[in-house]
Amino acid sequence: MPDQHTVLRSATKEVVLGHDRPFTIIGERINPTGRKIFQEQLRAGDFSAIERDVAAQVAGGADVLDVNMGVPLTDEPELLATAIRLVQSRTDLPICIDSSVVEALEVGLDAYQGRALVNSITAEDERMEQILPLVKRYDAAVIALPNDADEIPMEADKRIELVAKIVETATKEYGIALEDIVIDPLAMPIGADTQVVNTALETIQRIRQGWGLNMTLGASNVSFGMPARHALGAAFLPMAMTAGLTSAIMDARSPQIVEAVRAADLLLGHDEWGMSWIAAHRARQAAAAAATEQAAGQVLGTG
Amino acid sequence: MPDQHTVLRSATKEVVLGHDRPFTIIGERINPTGRKIFQEQLRAGDFSAIERDVAAQVAGGADVLDVNMGVPLTDEPELLATAIRLVQSRTDLPICIDSSVVEALEVGLDAYQGRALVNSITAEDERMEQILPLVKRYDAAVIALPNDADEIPMEADKRIELVAKIVETATKEYGIALEDIVIDPLAMPIGADTQVVNTALETIQRIRQGWGLNMTLGASNVSFGMPARHALGAAFLPMAMTAGLTSAIMDARSPQIVEAVRAADLLLGHDEWGMSWIAAHRARQAAAAAATEQAAGQVLGTG
Repeated sequence: MPDQHTVLRSATKEVVLGHDRPFTIIGERINPTGRKIFQEQLRAGDFSAIERDVAAQVAGGADVLDVNMGVPLTDEPELLATAIRLVQSRTDLPICIDSSVVEALEVGLDAYQGRALVNSITAEDERMEQILPLVKRYDAAVIALPNDADEIPMEADKRIELVAKIVETATKEYGIALEDIVIDPLAMPIGADTQVVNTALETIQRIRQGWGLNMTLGASNVSFGMPARHALGAAFLPMAMTAGLTSAIMDARSPQIVEAVRAADLLLGHDEWGMSWIAAHRARQAAAAAATEQAAGQVLGTG
Repeated sequence: MPDQHTVLRSATKEVVLGHDRPFTIIGERINPTGRKIFQEQLRAGDFSAIERDVAAQVAGGADVLDVNMGVPLTDEPELLATAIRLVQSRTDLPICIDSSVVEALEVGLDAYQGRALVNSITAEDERMEQILPLVKRYDAAVIALPNDADEIPMEADKRIELVAKIVETATKEYGIALEDIVIDPLAMPIGADTQVVNTALETIQRIRQGWGLNMTLGASNVSFGMPARHALGAAFLPMAMTAGLTSAIMDARSPQIVEAVRAADLLLGHDEWGMSWIAAHRARQAAAAAATEQAAGQVLGTG
């Protein structure tokens, strides 16, 4: 099957995922999971952390922003809609609407201006039945995980089987275009089993060969529990990109990992003449020079 | 064809290249090419730079050392033999004997204690005829470049054709074991043509699939002429390792690139339990703590 293009849009900006395109960085920080202070702020109606997180992800080089408002004991649908409107007032990047609550996805899609990426469905019939009609109605794209109710399959064969089921069901039963299905090939922690990355790489290769689909995954999972996590992430993404990964949900605040992704874009021929690579290098040089000048000014009492 | 193992040895240490092994870093600095002061020192019989370079490559994590003594207007065979004896007195790492001069390779092989890697032959009949009998006689392994007298082929098809010729000739006419042929898949500068890395990756995959051979390449070529070369090297090697590269000739003094290689080893399942990764992290922490303590001692006048 030919390589697919997945089109995402905000009100004013378009981002296209594709095997012939620069990698799509989905900034992952706008999410209160595991952040107690952020959760308390959101319960109290304080959204200032979102503004800071959006600014940091945009500055770090995110292409799309993942927005999740999974705060226990709140009205998640309303919180998510509010957050989406706030994020869209601060940036023109498209949004990946992230929730395990179907009603929150629906209210979020309704609040969103543009063409969203919905995060996520699995191969479970019930999830597809609840969410795919929304994806269709709001003309969105959707992330699909090849696992079912039982467990996360540890073999590539089983994951490919579930991808086939998802593709068949989404396209034939719910009328979703093939190009709007973005598969998460499932990256597990290397510390638990040294074969998990090989399995992910094989899954990625076979999904590209079989369907040409775009793929995204949670990049930080791989290094969970290991030291020097940024260095592992910076090696993992170029490897996964070589296999066919076209996007990741990741923290754009890590310059080492973002630089690794942009290096791999250049090396894979997705940065003509190295224009982006050279521009990023010049921007870093200019920022360093400005910082040096400012520091010197402060020492001299002129800053 | 099954994956091959290439065994290299010094007098006391064995290093095995293989697709199921940690990547082999061949330290590249013991080479006067483009280093005028080093050339003058060597002409004057001053070998102190070699001692420093060996120490730096070993400290950086090299597994094998490339030794080249290509200094114009000297007796290269004698210089190479002297350098090899010196290097072997300083480290137990195996050596990659590197020269374009056939006589220097012969004298170098004669001086070397162990099982060397000879750098290099091409697909040209004359080079094979001159060098492969030496490789056989001294029971060495050999690096082979799939180019002929005409030019470096820019298409993977042509490179694979030349690899087939090299394998056929080396094994059938000169009795070299398949496992002792290490192919250089040819990494060219990305700045000249954005498709060169894709060509190298395809070549690497097809060489592994076709013959299971080990491969090595000059890792710094890829970033030639580009800014932020270490970041490009740190992305390129994990990508090439994913395709099947098992070794590189590189400067082990770049912590970013060495760390990327060891990260990829872990991710590909060649570092059981992450033992090497965790040990390297602890060693860096200990070194940083010692440096901090020493600096504090100096400030307090006790250092």
